[in-house]
Amino acid sequence: MNRLTWSQLDAGAQAQALQRPVQAVAARTRESVAALIAAVREGGDAALREITLRFDGVAPETFEVSEAEFAAAEQAVSAELRQAMIDAAARIRTFHQAGMSQGYAVETAPGVRCERVVRPIGRVGLYVPAGSAPLPSTALMLGVPAQLAGCREVVLCTPPRKDGSADPAVLVAARLTGVHRVFKLGGAQAIAAMAYGTDSVPTCDKLYGPGNSYVTEAKQQVAQDGAAAIDMPAGPSEVLVIADAGATPAFVAADLLSQAEHGPDSQVLLLTDDAAMVDRVEAAVEAQLAQLSRAEIAAQALASSRLILVESLDDAFAISNRYAPEHLILALREPRAWLENVEAAGSVFLGDYTPEALGDYCSGTNHVLPTAGAARAYSGVSVASFQNLISVQSATPAGIAAIGECARVLARAEGLDAHENAVTLRMEAAA
Amino acid sequence: MNRLTWSQLDAGAQAQALQRPVQAVAARTRESVAALIAAVREGGDAALREITLRFDGVAPETFEVSEAEFAAAEQAVSAELRQAMIDAAARIRTFHQAGMSQGYAVETAPGVRCERVVRPIGRVGLYVPAGSAPLPSTALMLGVPAQLAGCREVVLCTPPRKDGSADPAVLVAARLTGVHRVFKLGGAQAIAAMAYGTDSVPTCDKLYGPGNSYVTEAKQQVAQDGAAAIDMPAGPSEVLVIADAGATPAFVAADLLSQAEHGPDSQVLLLTDDAAMVDRVEAAVEAQLAQLSRAEIAAQALASSRLILVESLDDAFAISNRYAPEHLILALREPRAWLENVEAAGSVFLGDYTPEALGDYCSGTNHVLPTAGAARAYSGVSVASFQNLISVQSATPAGIAAIGECARVLARAEGLDAHENAVTLRMEAAA
Repeated sequence: MNRLTWSQLDAGAQAQALQRPVQAVAARTRESVAALIAAVREGGDAALREITLRFDGVAPETFEVSEAEFAAAEQAVSAELRQAMIDAAARIRTFHQAGMSQGYAVETAPGVRCERVVRPIGRVGLYVPAGSAPLPSTALMLGVPAQLAGCREVVLCTPPRKDGSADPAVLVAARLTGVHRVFKLGGAQAIAAMAYGTDSVPTCDKLYGPGNSYVTEAKQQVAQDGAAAIDMPAGPSEVLVIADAGATPAFVAADLLSQAEHGPDSQVLLLTDDAAMVDRVEAAVEAQLAQLSRAEIAAQALASSRLILVESLDDAFAISNRYAPEHLILALREPRAWLENVEAAGSVFLGDYTPEALGDYCSGTNHVLPTAGAARAYSGVSVASFQNLISVQSATPAGIAAIGECARVLARAEGLDAHENAVTLRMEAAA
Repeated sequence: MNRLTWSQLDAGAQAQALQRPVQAVAARTRESVAALIAAVREGGDAALREITLRFDGVAPETFEVSEAEFAAAEQAVSAELRQAMIDAAARIRTFHQAGMSQGYAVETAPGVRCERVVRPIGRVGLYVPAGSAPLPSTALMLGVPAQLAGCREVVLCTPPRKDGSADPAVLVAARLTGVHRVFKLGGAQAIAAMAYGTDSVPTCDKLYGPGNSYVTEAKQQVAQDGAAAIDMPAGPSEVLVIADAGATPAFVAADLLSQAEHGPDSQVLLLTDDAAMVDRVEAAVEAQLAQLSRAEIAAQALASSRLILVESLDDAFAISNRYAPEHLILALREPRAWLENVEAAGSVFLGDYTPEALGDYCSGTNHVLPTAGAARAYSGVSVASFQNLISVQSATPAGIAAIGECARVLARAEGLDAHENAVTLRMEAAA
């Protein structure tokens, strides 16, 4: 891990210290993805079969998961895991439901009523990765808010395993959250299928979820093309921990490592105003790393990670806001008092007993969050991500009398005669 | 205008009838925009000056509008127009404020508190076009929600006029809504400057507003690059009117024309279950068209527009939901009863006395809305467009005892040891 003292860095070195590992999408990736998308648009299911054989080593007869497969999945998942998913889903539901947007109406002038109505997005497509491991938790994180929003059709794609089946835990999670249809499709080809539709896979209005660089690039390409909206640009996971002298080094180390084990391109940062804490955390990381099954991945991620000594916690928050981390852990004695200093972050974890893993699985918050600094202007997935807000207005004859002249003056200023005329006609009729 | 009878069309012809005018961005436009962006990133203010001279015919010494220019603008705008902008801004504020997201907190398990906090996006960039006419109303529509959100710095770009000044009404609107800095910059170069920053123009986190195809393409390119978020993909304006036999043809015609006069690529659609209404609206359009100063533009837009006879209003709503119009006018006897049938639209206008022009200017709703069918999965600009929602969680020792095992089971199922360990360490300490 790289140890730095913030005040000793010049502006260039400070910027360097907050650089994410290089994420420039290789031109090659961009072209491969464009080619895959074009193939699916042209070749439909046949192309999907060919591509799936090439990348996943299987060519399923049908992509859609059958009732028999769902039934088999129920058998394959342990009672313990099933119950954990039920419990997690319940807490995710509690938190997300409490934050749902409501319609409202106000009178903005006598006889002029403006309102907002909330509608579910019609058909949504969820992507659940299964790279080094399948992620049933992601199925819960996407399935619950889609269900709460009331989307007419919720579609989920997840890559097939070598034997052609889908991961049973992902299937159980999909069923627990009311997902309507599941397809054994992964990668850019799954995104293309949901964006443009094939004989098997229906066209979706918006696509959600994390994925590898191919999936992420494919989401961006279909969004750019106007084929489907996407939740947010997603990238490698990251955590920033702000620790004071009272923090528990073993806890901090464990949180850094749980981020690092996600992938070699994950990034972890520690900011502390206590020089001794840097040593103690580094020692704890060393000790814990050896115990991990994914130690090699974590070690790679740690190579691009940083332990930064700052002069004050105020400085730490200024740096954090500039970095805008996906996950922000406040390992502080007064975490709640410091919360107001947080300007940009995906999800925040307060105090010593709130490891990031709680948010990843079962505190109730969403784990699909903006990465790579996108937290400066994007929020994590919520029920609102699955809804449209439609504005509505209605004027009575008294209403047009009240505000018509205002509209006419503005229309004239903008040189738009027909706008003025549309108002004038009503004002005359109302008079 | 093209007259069609829906039930006589086959599926292909129906799809054709709902096609927007071709909006494929020419490869040439894409390349020109990429070149402009690259030039601004490399050349900064000098490049901005060269490009502005090339496209706007002026090369301002400084791009930022000075206090003296704001003062001159106040003198140049009539009292009537100033008052209309004040009144419109007040109603926009009333409607937008009433719909602001609130933070909330819930206990999802004993000792586990999950919350959402709302933070303004730090620095936002507004684009106000001034093509055939300057649009002070757009400055109000973007400035008011940015101000309500409490963004630290609100930047606005608008193209310079031939004499190097900015439109006075746009400047007054910017001041009325608390915009902090205004720059005389237009086109793709303005978007590039706000996304990447120059010596004069600060780097913005998110960019908003409508524009021509260069501006729109530039917004998409900077978003794709991860430089800045954008409000939504924007395109030519459009309206769909659903009229019953009781509608007033002159009103319907006036609304169709106020959309058509926006630009030759605007699209207007009428759906009615009354065959006579088609004739009467067409006659009224002819009569009104002759009176318009922008008749030529409107006539071009009408060429790609459609009057469609449907068998029932239910059919009309099914078609409208499929088209997902930016503006939807319900010229119906019971418009409110039909509102529940609206699934996808940007903004809805109920009844005979609510012309679209009211929403464009001063009912209180926003006029920056999703076009080209994006209303299926995007909403118009609101205060939320200027805010980040950050989730927060905190667990007490009792909290980790309550839900820690759930997280451990899920972490094991996903093969993530360090996640499990981060929870285990706290559970042991809490026990």
